Amino acid sequence: MHGPIIGVIGSGWCSRESEDLARQVGIGIALRGGVLICGGLDGVMRAAARGAKEHGGLTVGILPGPDITEANPFIDIAIATNMGQARNAIIVQTAQALVAVAGGYGTLSEIALALKIGKTVVALRPEFDINGVRRVETVSEALDVVFDQPIAG
Amino acid sequence: MHGPIIGVIGSGWCSRESEDLARQVGIGIALRGGVLICGGLDGVMRAAARGAKEHGGLTVGILPGPDITEANPFIDIAIATNMGQARNAIIVQTAQALVAVAGGYGTLSEIALALKIGKTVVALRPEFDINGVRRVETVSEALDVVFDQPIAG
Amino acid sequence: MHGPIIGVIGSGWCSRESEDLARQVGIGIALRGGVLICGGLDGVMRAAARGAKEHGGLTVGILPGPDITEANPFIDIAIATNMGQARNAIIVQTAQALVAVAGGYGTLSEIALALKIGKTVVALRPEFDINGVRRVETVSEALDVVFDQPIAG
Amino acid sequence: MHGPIIGVIGSGWCSRESEDLARQVGIGIALRGGVLICGGLDGVMRAAARGAKEHGGLTVGILPGPDITEANPFIDIAIATNMGQARNAIIVQTAQALVAVAGGYGTLSEIALALKIGKTVVALRPEFDINGVRRVETVSEALDVVFDQPIAG
Repeated sequence: MHGPIIGVIGSGWCSRESEDLARQVGIGIALRGGVLICGGLDGVMRAAARGAKEHGGLTVGILPGPDITEANPFIDIAIATNMGQARNAIIVQTAQALVAVAGGYGTLSEIALALKIGKTVVALRPEFDINGVRRVETVSEALDVVFDQPIAG
Repeated sequence: MHGPIIGVIGSGWCSRESEDLARQVGIGIALRGGVLICGGLDGVMRAAARGAKEHGGLTVGILPGPDITEANPFIDIAIATNMGQARNAIIVQTAQALVAVAGGYGTLSEIALALKIGKTVVALRPEFDINGVRRVETVSEALDVVFDQPIAG
Repeated sequence: MHGPIIGVIGSGWCSRESEDLARQVGIGIALRGGVLICGGLDGVMRAAARGAKEHGGLTVGILPGPDITEANPFIDIAIATNMGQARNAIIVQTAQALVAVAGGYGTLSEIALALKIGKTVVALRPEFDINGVRRVETVSEALDVVFDQPIAG
Repeated sequence: MHGPIIGVIGSGWCSRESEDLARQVGIGIALRGGVLICGGLDGVMRAAARGAKEHGGLTVGILPGPDITEANPFIDIAIATNMGQARNAIIVQTAQALVAVAGGYGTLSEIALALKIGKTVVALRPEFDINGVRRVETVSEALDVVFDQPIAG
């Protein structure tokens, strides 16, 4: 088994600032020896995976569609669920803990699913103010929290 | 095909006030000829299904577990998904529109999944303030909105 | 809760003989007070649902796609899973027991999933010879077996 | 993206001969630069993953349960679907092609789901004789076929 699996969630389209933040999160996950799991598409997912790949990390993308070629080019292992948004439940079930960067409704569903099953979620630049999410100011703080969670759920 | 399928979402444990509200929603769905779909368990789901059944409605419960006997006694058609919280995606995919009554993280995930795929959600006594959800004050207003949506999605 | 939920599985395109057989199965399920569950599409699924509806039965279609309007016109309750062939697992999980009529690979997957979780499958005119499937010669025999199974699984 | 993702399917309990065969398949996948995907549990899944890991391969396990610690120790990336047997659809959707080694009903469901969506399946020591499965005699033949398939589906 590789290192802890850390989820990065955020929308498929995002601002340049969120992209930079997501990439920093990906870099940090790789440098701390984690495996990055995300939805495998664009925006925050792509930026985070790119950061991780640039620093030797391993990246997993849980795709909504039927075809692994849908994944962004920074995904090592693309999983084609063909289950649409129900794939969000698989991301949160698999991740030890999750970092949310900005994000839209898809991200909100992942946050809610994660909190429902007791996973820790930290948020950077959150779009939503959800009770139970740990809001942090820096990537380093975010990573300190998510790497300090128990493996299984 | 029966009438429009209306989702009722809310948590498995709720206050007496939310229960009364959910029951009124169920009654209204039945009286307007709709089919009620919900998560099939307790709290808001049970109260809404009860209201619908007491007025001749048809009720569907999309269960998280493997066994249809898990459904509350007011569910006519229990669907055993054995998919845990991923079943939330099926409820919102199937419903024409959804009424949220109070609700916790599970409900929040349903709201987010619904908005993600473009379904209308109205909320009574919402626990969360989510942009895109139509907040209404009365059951009658809620039903006016959800019955006035296009069938498919 | 309505009567026992009986699954009818078979392919989306079938011969006239299989269609007649499926319709007889649907009629029998309705007359014995069962609820018919199937994949909601054409061929065997449509013929069985038609038979059930013509005799006052209730029919449920678990669809692979995102849209309930995909269901055949004899489905009362269409569930839009948007999960492709993974929806087959929901059909077998929900049904008390299943009748297979002819059938291709999709049906074979349902037979296998059903046997895996311990559900009874009877087959009329089977395309495959699978150990564990009860092969019967008449619709009446098939119904005797499936109605005589325990409800939950 | 790593090399082609090759599925290995077979039951969670198997004979010593099937275990040896599965391990050879895993070794071959690793040596040819493929990523092994399987159900992540015991028997054929464990033996194949072990073979791959012993030769520097990368292994992915798509688990039926909610917890990644359920995976056998030779799985690098464990995905916790919490979807029971519906996870079989994800394995076949993700794999470029699949090698079946012996196998029970779960394996049969994967074979059927794979053929349903047009994926190539080769079988070593098959328990079932399914039209459409390519029966081969040696591990080398099996690998020649599965590595020679188009990536996406």
